[in-house]
Amino acid sequence: MSTLTKKELKHIHAYWQAANYLAAGQIYLQENPLLKEPLRAADIKPRLLGHWGTSPGLNLVYVHLNRLIKNTDANVLYVCGPGHGAPAIIAHTYLEGTYSEIYPKVAENEHGMRHLFRQFSTPGGIPSHVGANTPGSINEGGELGYSLVHAFGAAFDNPDLLVACVVGDGEAETGPLEGSWKSIAFLNPARDGAVLPILHLNGYKISGPTVLSRMSDESLTCLFLGHGYETYFVEGDDPMAVHTQMAQTLDAAYEKIKNIQQAARTTGLPYPFLWPVIILRTPKGWTGPKAWKGVPIEGTFRSHQVPLTGVKEDPEKLKLLEDWMRSYHPEDLFDGQGKLIPELAVLAPKGKKRMGAVAQANGGLLLTDIILPDFKKYELTIGKPGTIEAESTRNLGKYLRDIFTLNKDAHNFRLFCPDETTSNRLEAVFEVTERCTMETTLSGDDKLTKDGRVMEVLSEHLCEGWLEGYLLTGRHGLFPCYEAFVTIVDSMVSQHAKWLKTSRELPWRKPVASLNYLLTSHVWRQDNNGYSHQGPGFIDTVINKKSAVARIYLPPDANTLLSVMDHCFRSKDYINVIVAGKQPELQWLNMEDAVKHCAQGASDWKWAGTAKHDAPDVVLACAGDVPTLETVAAAWQLKRHLPQLKVRVVNVIDLMALSPQAYHPHGMSDELFSELFTDSAPVIFAFHGYVRIIHDLVHGRPNPSRFHVRGYMEEGTTTTPFDMVVLNQMSRYHLAMEAVKRVPLIHQCAEMFIDHCEDKLAYHHQYICTHLDDMLEIKNWKWTVEHHLLDLPEEV
Amino acid sequence: MSTLTKKELKHIHAYWQAANYLAAGQIYLQENPLLKEPLRAADIKPRLLGHWGTSPGLNLVYVHLNRLIKNTDANVLYVCGPGHGAPAIIAHTYLEGTYSEIYPKVAENEHGMRHLFRQFSTPGGIPSHVGANTPGSINEGGELGYSLVHAFGAAFDNPDLLVACVVGDGEAETGPLEGSWKSIAFLNPARDGAVLPILHLNGYKISGPTVLSRMSDESLTCLFLGHGYETYFVEGDDPMAVHTQMAQTLDAAYEKIKNIQQAARTTGLPYPFLWPVIILRTPKGWTGPKAWKGVPIEGTFRSHQVPLTGVKEDPEKLKLLEDWMRSYHPEDLFDGQGKLIPELAVLAPKGKKRMGAVAQANGGLLLTDIILPDFKKYELTIGKPGTIEAESTRNLGKYLRDIFTLNKDAHNFRLFCPDETTSNRLEAVFEVTERCTMETTLSGDDKLTKDGRVMEVLSEHLCEGWLEGYLLTGRHGLFPCYEAFVTIVDSMVSQHAKWLKTSRELPWRKPVASLNYLLTSHVWRQDNNGYSHQGPGFIDTVINKKSAVARIYLPPDANTLLSVMDHCFRSKDYINVIVAGKQPELQWLNMEDAVKHCAQGASDWKWAGTAKHDAPDVVLACAGDVPTLETVAAAWQLKRHLPQLKVRVVNVIDLMALSPQAYHPHGMSDELFSELFTDSAPVIFAFHGYVRIIHDLVHGRPNPSRFHVRGYMEEGTTTTPFDMVVLNQMSRYHLAMEAVKRVPLIHQCAEMFIDHCEDKLAYHHQYICTHLDDMLEIKNWKWTVEHHLLDLPEEV
Repeated sequence: MSTLTKKELKHIHAYWQAANYLAAGQIYLQENPLLKEPLRAADIKPRLLGHWGTSPGLNLVYVHLNRLIKNTDANVLYVCGPGHGAPAIIAHTYLEGTYSEIYPKVAENEHGMRHLFRQFSTPGGIPSHVGANTPGSINEGGELGYSLVHAFGAAFDNPDLLVACVVGDGEAETGPLEGSWKSIAFLNPARDGAVLPILHLNGYKISGPTVLSRMSDESLTCLFLGHGYETYFVEGDDPMAVHTQMAQTLDAAYEKIKNIQQAARTTGLPYPFLWPVIILRTPKGWTGPKAWKGVPIEGTFRSHQVPLTGVKEDPEKLKLLEDWMRSYHPEDLFDGQGKLIPELAVLAPKGKKRMGAVAQANGGLLLTDIILPDFKKYELTIGKPGTIEAESTRNLGKYLRDIFTLNKDAHNFRLFCPDETTSNRLEAVFEVTERCTMETTLSGDDKLTKDGRVMEVLSEHLCEGWLEGYLLTGRHGLFPCYEAFVTIVDSMVSQHAKWLKTSRELPWRKPVASLNYLLTSHVWRQDNNGYSHQGPGFIDTVINKKSAVARIYLPPDANTLLSVMDHCFRSKDYINVIVAGKQPELQWLNMEDAVKHCAQGASDWKWAGTAKHDAPDVVLACAGDVPTLETVAAAWQLKRHLPQLKVRVVNVIDLMALSPQAYHPHGMSDELFSELFTDSAPVIFAFHGYVRIIHDLVHGRPNPSRFHVRGYMEEGTTTTPFDMVVLNQMSRYHLAMEAVKRVPLIHQCAEMFIDHCEDKLAYHHQYICTHLDDMLEIKNWKWTVEHHLLDLPEEV
Repeated sequence: MSTLTKKELKHIHAYWQAANYLAAGQIYLQENPLLKEPLRAADIKPRLLGHWGTSPGLNLVYVHLNRLIKNTDANVLYVCGPGHGAPAIIAHTYLEGTYSEIYPKVAENEHGMRHLFRQFSTPGGIPSHVGANTPGSINEGGELGYSLVHAFGAAFDNPDLLVACVVGDGEAETGPLEGSWKSIAFLNPARDGAVLPILHLNGYKISGPTVLSRMSDESLTCLFLGHGYETYFVEGDDPMAVHTQMAQTLDAAYEKIKNIQQAARTTGLPYPFLWPVIILRTPKGWTGPKAWKGVPIEGTFRSHQVPLTGVKEDPEKLKLLEDWMRSYHPEDLFDGQGKLIPELAVLAPKGKKRMGAVAQANGGLLLTDIILPDFKKYELTIGKPGTIEAESTRNLGKYLRDIFTLNKDAHNFRLFCPDETTSNRLEAVFEVTERCTMETTLSGDDKLTKDGRVMEVLSEHLCEGWLEGYLLTGRHGLFPCYEAFVTIVDSMVSQHAKWLKTSRELPWRKPVASLNYLLTSHVWRQDNNGYSHQGPGFIDTVINKKSAVARIYLPPDANTLLSVMDHCFRSKDYINVIVAGKQPELQWLNMEDAVKHCAQGASDWKWAGTAKHDAPDVVLACAGDVPTLETVAAAWQLKRHLPQLKVRVVNVIDLMALSPQAYHPHGMSDELFSELFTDSAPVIFAFHGYVRIIHDLVHGRPNPSRFHVRGYMEEGTTTTPFDMVVLNQMSRYHLAMEAVKRVPLIHQCAEMFIDHCEDKLAYHHQYICTHLDDMLEIKNWKWTVEHHLLDLPEEV
């Protein structure tokens, strides 16, 4: 273990002082950035904002990581959990030069430093937390909880990367963060990089203490030993002593990591082994003002944000601020032009080794296209529409399997899924890869190895966060999920959407692979699981995101699913939500038609309607596999019973195609919209999710009041698939009746037809009400839709 | 520590066998429930569904808790985390009699048992997991992660309650569950009840192993010691040995809990002390079929759901099933009529001590109304509308403070908040209570005691889950939250809404207090925090919930906020979302007008418009505090510059009032809607959140295309409040211009007015673009809206 020389110690301390000075400057100053003049009230910003409390600790970690990088040539990515500590991270990227390279206005001189200070938390400037605009960041510091899971996602398949992840003790209280420690059970030191968590206990959140900070070292040691980590404590409030400890500790932790990796990559490792975690206990707002009128500030919650307020108005406070800022001796750190003095500048790594410039933090730089098999090869031969049943996702599994094979050498593709890969019918992937675990395996286990590329963990938060980290560092992936439970990560996808929108506005951020969801086990087919498993609300969450970012697809069958999936894997910087059931469902389109349908986003399914090339009396529209089944069946009912009615069936696969072009780039042209939906015919729209989305999407289209939407109304629990659509008033009979009611025609026939539909529904009702007592009496009892009983077309 | 007598052991084992038999029967049988006849294929259900794997373990816990209750007279609430283990919980509530009391059709006889089996996971029957329909449950077992947090919520302020919470090792992997262990840092043994977690490690999820089950006992001991728990292991696969261990362990854990409580309630306790946690390692699918054709089932993932499939078709499998079910010897457990034999029936507690009948599991039984102060007392005197500014939530804080005081003796009201009580301006509550912690306190802490009733933890999951548990056991509470970050619990509120809907359909479930959210620090006033803190999507999540359950209020000022809050606290079985900013905002209504406005849900603000009693040329509508400000200012602009234009201003406070009555009980009548919005005048609607909600709500109202909605478009980051509304095109100028463009009038004046608005916006643009360089040159630079600069009415 090395010890710092006196000179090293002095320089490291001075560099830290420089970063602390810049952090404080960002919070307080609008003029006089080098304090060349005595501090005046006019130098102080009109509104003081920012988080000082965490900044000195973040600065300490950064300067010591710089030392480690210089000494070892390690590739280090700095993930900053305490995101509001942006003043620290920005200070360091400025000191190392990356900030000015990306933002030349913030130059390494006095004028640039003035801009650095003024832009912070100022209208037209930058937010007070790290995010896409921060060099070196893959983590948005606004919503807390995801730093560690992002860090692990970055480390997967990056064997030469060390991800240093500072976790604040506030963030450490969140569920997602507490759930992230176990990620080491999925991190293979032979093929993956390492994560070095640095838990920063500075004691307080906004106004209360943190749970972890009040725990003893013994309890923390126990807790982390239980999690599989060896604790390395760095504690104190004497900077020189802490520097010495921190340098030694980082060296030791790094050595420990290298030893683990070396063993794993050569002789193999016994399980369990312990990964290092550093626990850093330093005062909140360390080196800031100690107290004001006897009330302590440093080391208390009072230094969480702005430790001294009202400095512009109060000369005494202004003096205290000046004393504080001068305690860093800016005149010794920066030259007259405002540039860091050369003796200190050499402490930062060079070029791509600088943590503000590490390529993994701008994953688009490293992104290589995923190699995709020709999806048409996996075509399901369907004959006439509606004549065979198949599980669409099972077919997709073969395609995914071959993606694993084709990209084997690139080590850049994984599935992230909450233990549902088999349940979701994707098990073909297990022909070529396995589930991943680093824990002991037993003979009863199935497809489970250290090298598996299917990341199954019963935590949607981990699946989402790992995948985000994996994508943001330049790789590809897919998150298959039960539809209802993906809403667990509603807020995470919202933050990722914000990240993508911001990134797109920054020319230096290169596009990354899209975040792709496959939502299956969806609302309409929960069968035994019932009400708690019904939840199509993720579509509502995603649809509100900036239109440049969000895409929603509802492929109605296996071939369209393949075509959509291929499109999504090729895309960049999007969030693609694909909703497709896993149950056996009727198949509609051959591959040629599927490709055309997907390209257009929505089509007239002429074979299903009776209007053919005529103007329709009514349009039956649908989006989603179950709504499509009901709509086709409704059209068939109408064809059989009311052949004179001209019905058009329109299937919508790309939901955003409904939107006026002005609101979404996928919006279909006015011409196509009118061609499909006419300008005036009533439209009966069967939708997979909550109806409000359709009401909104067609707002701005001709005569939107004619759209009558049926969708999920939160009705039904443990029941048959057909009963689900009945209870939610989206069955073929409901759709057909609605169509007939909306077209004022041939009154007698219409009434007869409505009677027919109501009879069918009454029969169904009786069937459901009595079958608990008479299970055996109903022939061919099954859960899937009964074609004969329910008048489904045998072919259409 | 007691030891089971031979007779006790025999009885306990037999009772367990009975429960296991009933669990298996629910999964497999539709006839021949007592196996009086040889098992035939026809006795098997047509579709086999259910989760056997976890059931024997859940049954074991239940029967041993029965013994504990009998011996100690403890009040025990059983929270079942592995929700798909409903066959077990239902079996036990049936055996103890509670199930038949609630559902007489499922009687304690052969016919009732037949129904018990047939209803399970069958169309028209019951779901395969515990939920509102399960006697004794306060936890929905569909979405995993919340059992432990619900358990703690139930234990708060219930000093005589023991909440036994079984946590499955699958659920234990979720972030929210991992974050829940720390709840003991907030559980005060002097005033609260106890939670006894029983971590059930049976090894597997659907198809992979669980992380915790592969950890050694030593690691688990460490982990839980770190969390503050002493581990009590019960491990084995020999039932008799496990019964003995389990009985001793439960006794020991109970004694430990009583000792802690007694000490805390008398002499006081040193911190830290350890709470017990039981770790139960038993084989998955224990006592089920051992193997099939050499492939092991018991103890592997293959017994997660239905351990033997295809039994109807395969006589050999049928035989194996019969052997398995007969291994429990139903003929020795139930009499000829199908009733549990008396020697076993006495093992269950009696009356309200039965875990299926404990009153806390049906909290409405215990609910007493909250005592509310007269909210009108807190009226903010406002003079003329728009003449004073105030922080609406700061005023509300005083009302909340007095609620604490008035309900002090009832111990039935708490705030749950992620460390933001002060930040949200509610600090008046700290005049009468404190933040709660059980950890060491330091001199620098503020308002922090063991007895505090403000539950601050940096975890929205914990706040939500604690509050749900607190409400479902019959108490009251409020969850104030930053608006953007409440979406972290999107899926939890969705599940709670499902719970409420289901409960309302069950006459035996009594109404509980509503789940009330105060969303503040909202999208329009993120100032320095910027883009990551902007997220009004929670409204979208809640609005999709069943209309009987969800309510959304947007009080525009302090007096309306008081009136709304009072209404929400009085309500039952709702989810009430209240959105109100914390920043200084102009005040509009005195209390008398506020009360009328709230009662009607939306009103014509005649003082703000120019139409007075005439038919308006255009309606300016608004919902939310910032949209209201912009709308009133737009109306004032129009009044000044285009006095001939008849403008009506309509403020909407109860969002659901917009909905047609057919869709929502709060929907205003057609008459009132037409009175406010006319049938044909253009409506320019400024909305707090995403615009799609308004498009949907007015669908079905006269001529909905005339509604032109402005709202949050995901634009803007760190900037001024006024710039936010400009970037999202919802500023007073945007609204006024839109109004003028929609009314074809007096062309020259209209053009001049539009020029005026565009000049104002251009000036604003220049102001934003240049001020980073010229901060000092703009007089009165501040973040709040500048009345003079922006032409805000000094009075309206």
